[in-house]
Amino acid sequence: MPVLSTLTVNGDRLNRTLFQLAEIGKLPDGGVSRVAFTTDDLLARQQVKAWMVQAGMTVRIDAAGNIIGSYAGKNDGAAALATGSHIDTVPVAGRYDGCLGVLAGIEVVQVLHESNLRLDHPIEVIVFTDEERSVLGCKAMAGEVREPSEYYARLDGTPIQACLEKIGGDWSAIATAKRDRSDVAAFVELHVEQGGLLEHQGIPIGVVDGIVGQYRFAVNVMGRMNHAGTTPMHMRKDALVAAAQMVLAVNKIGVEIPGEQVATVGYLHVSPNATNTVPGAVDFRIDLRDLSQSHLELLVSRMKDEFAAIAAATNTHFTLRETLHILPTLSAPHIKDVIKHVSEQLDLPYSYLPSRAGHDAQEIGRFTDMGMIFVPSQGGISHSVDEYTTPEECTQGANVLLNTFLQLDKIYAIE
Amino acid sequence: MPVLSTLTVNGDRLNRTLFQLAEIGKLPDGGVSRVAFTTDDLLARQQVKAWMVQAGMTVRIDAAGNIIGSYAGKNDGAAALATGSHIDTVPVAGRYDGCLGVLAGIEVVQVLHESNLRLDHPIEVIVFTDEERSVLGCKAMAGEVREPSEYYARLDGTPIQACLEKIGGDWSAIATAKRDRSDVAAFVELHVEQGGLLEHQGIPIGVVDGIVGQYRFAVNVMGRMNHAGTTPMHMRKDALVAAAQMVLAVNKIGVEIPGEQVATVGYLHVSPNATNTVPGAVDFRIDLRDLSQSHLELLVSRMKDEFAAIAAATNTHFTLRETLHILPTLSAPHIKDVIKHVSEQLDLPYSYLPSRAGHDAQEIGRFTDMGMIFVPSQGGISHSVDEYTTPEECTQGANVLLNTFLQLDKIYAIE
Repeated sequence: MPVLSTLTVNGDRLNRTLFQLAEIGKLPDGGVSRVAFTTDDLLARQQVKAWMVQAGMTVRIDAAGNIIGSYAGKNDGAAALATGSHIDTVPVAGRYDGCLGVLAGIEVVQVLHESNLRLDHPIEVIVFTDEERSVLGCKAMAGEVREPSEYYARLDGTPIQACLEKIGGDWSAIATAKRDRSDVAAFVELHVEQGGLLEHQGIPIGVVDGIVGQYRFAVNVMGRMNHAGTTPMHMRKDALVAAAQMVLAVNKIGVEIPGEQVATVGYLHVSPNATNTVPGAVDFRIDLRDLSQSHLELLVSRMKDEFAAIAAATNTHFTLRETLHILPTLSAPHIKDVIKHVSEQLDLPYSYLPSRAGHDAQEIGRFTDMGMIFVPSQGGISHSVDEYTTPEECTQGANVLLNTFLQLDKIYAIE
Repeated sequence: MPVLSTLTVNGDRLNRTLFQLAEIGKLPDGGVSRVAFTTDDLLARQQVKAWMVQAGMTVRIDAAGNIIGSYAGKNDGAAALATGSHIDTVPVAGRYDGCLGVLAGIEVVQVLHESNLRLDHPIEVIVFTDEERSVLGCKAMAGEVREPSEYYARLDGTPIQACLEKIGGDWSAIATAKRDRSDVAAFVELHVEQGGLLEHQGIPIGVVDGIVGQYRFAVNVMGRMNHAGTTPMHMRKDALVAAAQMVLAVNKIGVEIPGEQVATVGYLHVSPNATNTVPGAVDFRIDLRDLSQSHLELLVSRMKDEFAAIAAATNTHFTLRETLHILPTLSAPHIKDVIKHVSEQLDLPYSYLPSRAGHDAQEIGRFTDMGMIFVPSQGGISHSVDEYTTPEECTQGANVLLNTFLQLDKIYAIE
């Protein structure tokens, strides 16, 4: 591995732009709300495009509304080395999720531009559309948009075509957003961890092994609604008693089966939900994640067995419906190696870990080489006003990204 | 015990009035909605007052809006033997809950009136105000209204005084509704069981041992909200995992501790209740009922111990707040004996059982001798369109009530 370039990002500028972007959609208590396709999302997109142009990039919008900033390389026809993330947010968010990856990408290009440097490959910085809800942008780029347009309509009923038109996209041409390996040679995303492992270990850089696969299930437990006073215990079919056992079974699958999986029941609704009524039905939803698809399948099978036993023992019935299945995406080993070596040479301790949250890189990794760099999230907190990563950690992550690009530029041959 | 009178109620007429009353507030699917103080409740009160007058009663309204129909006895100053129940309903109800007790009482008097018979004691048939929500009517008669007027306001904010004025009551004079033993010698209420024990045993008459006492608690479990993907299992403080264990602990207290108690969690709410978020907080409510106050206290103490252990084991905290405590009311042993003997002489199998639902008799039993007669509820169903008791069972219950009054008239000496 060659020695590092003496180039470094301008950390002050990077952190300044992070705070500037957070002014758009700023909430009274310091958080940020910039849901995709809202006025604030549109304003933020304008700002980011302006910064891309300042950094010497040309900017285009694809049919999915993705903003693609391109910094030309020495070889016109070469496939791009790409980075990026998203700037849309959940309804109440912090400053870092997504934005750090976009702004660090622009900062990397800005540094090259200021130094009059061009790589052999073009560099792309991509802002993906609506990562937080539909992940439409990255899916379109991976050619994985299979759902009808209704699936992508907003919660208020606004059709996706109306949304895309606002940002320069076009639903009817969504297939044209698809790209492939000959066009994008590699994609590396810098992101905050959104978990507490790096902070817990006191380590500034995470080398991501891959992005976990995910199953979601909707479960409906049916018992018999009855008067909570007049129905003796032995005559009950209490749907909540059954569901409580299922919640604990899901947790046990997360905790007790060897592996790194997570298993969660985050949503549960009781019917009719009245203090003096034995619950007649419970709906709940399960979220299961792991890096290995075969391990996930084992967990699902174990869970179904447990549920059947619980239903039999509690005189209840249940239905279980798969509502989401995302295959795991593993990082390209040679990109992990580059991130590791770059971290070593920058004297930054690193640690391998899975990404248990979804990212744009998950879809992009389906058609080209993918890698991810994590920086710590204070308290593991994300999707919250309290999301925080120190300025120094943001700068460290961006320097790893810069040097990773410099190395990848040498590794990928120009054909 | 003397032989029975040859009097019997007119079962056809009783069942006809049950169906006629159910026409007022009838729902399209055959159920009934006659919430207290609504126009339909007022219309039903008019109908019942007319039937009382037809049966030879004088009718008055007390300050709580209770309708008191009085059939004079041979002795003017004697304390009354009283019966009755309520004709207001939950928002979606059947025909029997409350109404059977009121209409059977009127039928008993109608039969005496048609036969030109008077007992030594006056008979009263009472329609209690708002049994289904505030139990204001029976509480006022027991002198147990201790809450400020706001407590009795309707959910839409209508003050209780406005409600009472509509039915001839007067909140400012509520204390005048109080009665005592010298005025009401005994109270016997006929009611549908609202549970499935009698049907299960194939027995038409229930001799009620008493009306259970009740505790309600509101529990708040606090964990730590976190991303369901990025938070490893061992770093979680999952409020739903803790609450699920508590739900099962409550159920275990109902099922495994020897006794006849019921223990229910009917209401549970998860925050923020999102599939991809480890629950940060759960609110749930507990309903505990038993005939013995000391047994209830044991259950509560056991439950609190279990909750403390669960919170410690799950890294969560909880608060538990008592929101309701109603003392049990036991039936007067001599009234139970009369109901038992009357059933035997009518060749009606009977069974002793507690009432695990509240009734007007619970409050009336605080100041005078109380007894209750149950008839079967098909499938144990109540507070539902599907509530059903056969015409024959209704008639059997009314005949037990009639003969119980004839016996009590002899037992209670005229002073």
